Order: sequence, then structure tokens, then C-alpha cells
Amino acid sequence: MKLLTLRISLEGQPGTVAVRQDGDVLTEIDGFADVGALLQDPAWETTAAAASGATHALDGADLAAVVPSPGKIICVGHSYRNHIKEMGREIPEYPTLFAKYSESLIGPNDDLALPQESDTVDWEAELAVVIGKKGRRISEADAVDHIAGYAVLNDISMRDYQFRTVQWLQGKTWENSTPFGPALVTKDEFTVGPLMSSAVDGEIQQQTPTGDLVFTPEFLVSYISTIITLNPGDVIATGTPGGVGHAQNPKRYLQEGQVLVTAIEGLGQLTNRVVKEA
Amino acid sequence: MKLLTLRISLEGQPGTVAVRQDGDVLTEIDGFADVGALLQDPAWETTAAAASGATHALDGADLAAVVPSPGKIICVGHSYRNHIKEMGREIPEYPTLFAKYSESLIGPNDDLALPQESDTVDWEAELAVVIGKKGRRISEADAVDHIAGYAVLNDISMRDYQFRTVQWLQGKTWENSTPFGPALVTKDEFTVGPLMSSAVDGEIQQQTPTGDLVFTPEFLVSYISTIITLNPGDVIATGTPGGVGHAQNPKRYLQEGQVLVTAIEGLGQLTNRVVKEA
Repeated sequence: MKLLTLRISLEGQPGTVAVRQDGDVLTEIDGFADVGALLQDPAWETTAAAASGATHALDGADLAAVVPSPGKIICVGHSYRNHIKEMGREIPEYPTLFAKYSESLIGPNDDLALPQESDTVDWEAELAVVIGKKGRRISEADAVDHIAGYAVLNDISMRDYQFRTVQWLQGKTWENSTPFGPALVTKDEFTVGPLMSSAVDGEIQQQTPTGDLVFTPEFLVSYISTIITLNPGDVIATGTPGGVGHAQNPKRYLQEGQVLVTAIEGLGQLTNRVVKEA
Repeated sequence: MKLLTLRISLEGQPGTVAVRQDGDVLTEIDGFADVGALLQDPAWETTAAAASGATHALDGADLAAVVPSPGKIICVGHSYRNHIKEMGREIPEYPTLFAKYSESLIGPNDDLALPQESDTVDWEAELAVVIGKKGRRISEADAVDHIAGYAVLNDISMRDYQFRTVQWLQGKTWENSTPFGPALVTKDEFTVGPLMSSAVDGEIQQQTPTGDLVFTPEFLVSYISTIITLNPGDVIATGTPGGVGHAQNPKRYLQEGQVLVTAIEGLGQLTNRVVKEA
């Protein structure tokens, strides 16, 4: 099943609604403002499968970030062997975790805001895991029960701010910079493994199988939930492979007017035009 | 004005309500489940001042974290000259920022959870700034308009997890570990400067004037809001001074049964018993 968050007009005001995608048709899941709200319903899978609300064409649909306001976005660094190597590091024993706030998220086809304050805006294609069931100290064996499904996320990084201090947060959480979607593909329809890529104006930058992850989604769910409760709608961005602009020679960063495409086979793609903020 | 979040029974179910403190009396601010919800009301100050709901005695009141679920908790590292020095670092040009998730927060008198997984649980007394008005790219001159007030927070840190990798998040966000309160003291009743302290079983560990902050609340509001919108209820934990257990010789950490008291003159104190999780 593919679940998305659609922007619609509600009594003349901008709003959103959770929808189910069947081929080219989106069907509203009545009563749920977005996929994050839907996941709060313990019977979300049945509810979504049974929904028969108003329909919309997928073509031309105005999509929001699939979960627009996760309670937590937990990002993983140093996750793919080739990215660890290009950044000059060793294969780690523990996952490196940092945060991103939900105000960073944008829809799968939204403009990506290039702020006046940074000219080192870089891409990081990532597989995102979306939590579907609350849990603490979840074993790796049980972790699959807590995963709702997967989506694509680009962990856009302002490298100057990221490296101003030893903590990366300030380079990782710029407003309206992180495309996330297009759909939550439920776990029965996706297995980690397929190719992930990012491309700038059609030129491939990153291209690595998601199966090369050092830390699997199940391991990450177990590790993070040892520390803190994972709740429905929480997002784990599992890290990026080699090919980021900052590690290229010469270094490359996103420029006004470029189009960034981030894709994972079986999950879909994000297509975001880079627009300089006024 | 002092605003708190009180735990009460609502039709037999556990709930919370925002209250105003006048001397020893707490008055319910009807319609607002906690201080975070209250701050979403643009007229929160007038609403709170005019409230005349049911009353409770402060003595024996069961208090929740003053803002139980902030949209963002942004923590600052390397903020006091004496703590920077004890950690062997230089006075920084930029604030070091990292995150904590709201599931970490506990009330001002709640038990502090000592997890089975860490035996290096340390204290960090901090002045917390609570945002009262939404804003992006707020100038330092305008920042005061966006600050609702101040509270006390102890940024409890599991040092082993904090230093497992280069990013601190996993040592900073353990469930039920971060006391926050007791009250939001509105900015008209508090000026940064008074002494902040932490004590373990009555023995002072940290004692430094909040006026020794390297980065002021107004600077931090301006700096952070350059990156991302600050919303009502968001919290900035402004960093800790010298005297943390990890920097002592020999190193000291919290032990089962100890009582940690964190206080700032004019803001009140947090009194938390350390209880090992089963």
C-alpha cells in the first residue's frame, strides 16, 4: 500500500488529507489530516485499505511531506561504507545519531529553499524508515512489527553551518530544505536492497544499493528505542552513501535553478527545484 | 507571572492543566492542557492573567514539565567560560547546537530514570528560554519580543553514549531524564544574571551566575531563527557551567537513591530523586 499526504482546499483554506494511492488514483482517507495522523490510529492499515473517500488524479497532485510533522526525526551519519570512506572515517561500532526538526521538511515536488546565509548546500539521498507502532527497548527481532514502511528523504546539509562547531544540527535543519516522500510504501511492498540515487540537472551524483547500509532499519529501531520511545510517525533517516558534493574534487554544491532528483527503486522519487530565498 | 503545568485527574483519567501561581495558590487556566498549549494563544499573557478557574494548593501539587511537549528543544553546548575551560576547549565563535526530544522531559519533582544501560549519568544545570511568539530571522534587538520567559532545566547526559560517536544526541535524550520547570517565569519578572546551581545530596556541584553565559538568550534566538522558525513553546536550553561530574577528578556520576537539586535564583528549583529503572 502507498500512502501520501495531499494538499487540498478545505472550505477555502489550505489543508491536507491522507490519501491511498491505487495506480494513478488517490483516495482520501476521511478524518486524517495527513499520514502522520493516520499512523496514530492503531488500525491504520485496515483503515487506509478500507478508505473510500473522494478521489484525485495522482498526475498534478500537490503533495506535502508524507509525514509533515513527525514527533522525532532521527538521522544517522556514517551509514554506508563508501560515504564513510569518502569522508575519511573508519567503519563505526555504533550509529552516529543527530536530529532534524520538522520545519525542515518539504513535499516531494516542492521548491528547495537555498538560503542567503549559505552557499554550501549539499545533497544526501537517504532511505527513511517510518514508525507505525509505539515501543521502547524493542529487540531487533521485534523491530519489523514497529516499522510502518519506507520513503525517500534528502538530508540536505548546509556544510558551512554543519562544520561551524562539532555538532552538526545547525547545518542539518534549515527551514524548507528536506524533501520527504513521495509516499509511505508499507513494509509488505518494499525490502531494503534496491538502488538509491541522487542527480543534479540529470547528472548522477550518488548511486548505491540501500542494501549496503552498515546499520539496518531493524538494528536502528532497536538501538534508538533503547534510548527513547519510538512513536507512530517518527522517522529514522538511515544515512547517505558516497557521492555528496562536499566530498567531490572540486567540491560541488546546489545552485539556484538546479533540479535535484532523489530516488529509490520501488519507493519513487523526489524532484525539487533549488530556489534562492529572497 | 509564574505559569506551571499541573497534573490532575480529568473524569478519572490522568490529565494536565495550565495554572497560574499566585503565592501558594495555583489557579487553573481553563481550556489549556499545559503551558505549551497556552503559549499557542497569541493573547496568552492576558488569558493567563485573567484566568479564574479552580484553585489548588502549590504545596503537594503534582507538577509536569512546564512545557511537556515542545515542538523543538534546542540545546547549546560550550556556553559558560568555566565549563568550556574544564572540558579543555576554546571560547567559541558560534554556539554549538544539538537537540533533545520531548520524551526526555520530566516534571520538577519527578523521579529521574537511571537506565540499566548507562552508569555515567551526569548533571548539567541550565537556564531554559521558552519562546512565546513565532518568528524567523529575528534580529537580536527584536528577540526579547519572542521570549515568553525562563525556567530551570537539567540537561542530564549519559556520558558513555554521548561520546560513543562524534554526535552527542544519543547521550542527551534518554527517556524521563530531563527535569524542566518548575514554572515559566515571564520575562518581566526575571533578568539573566542570578546564580544557578546543582547539588547532589546537598553537596554543591555547579554554582555560576547565569550572567556568565557566552551567548545571551537574545543572541541565541536570533542565531537559531536564522536557520529555522521558532514557534511558541519551543525551548532553548542555554548550556551549562563548570562542575559537571565528568570533568571532576575522580569523575562522579549520579547513583541510585541520590537527590539532585537544580536551582536558579528567581526561577525556583528542581528536586529529583535518582531511581534505577527495573
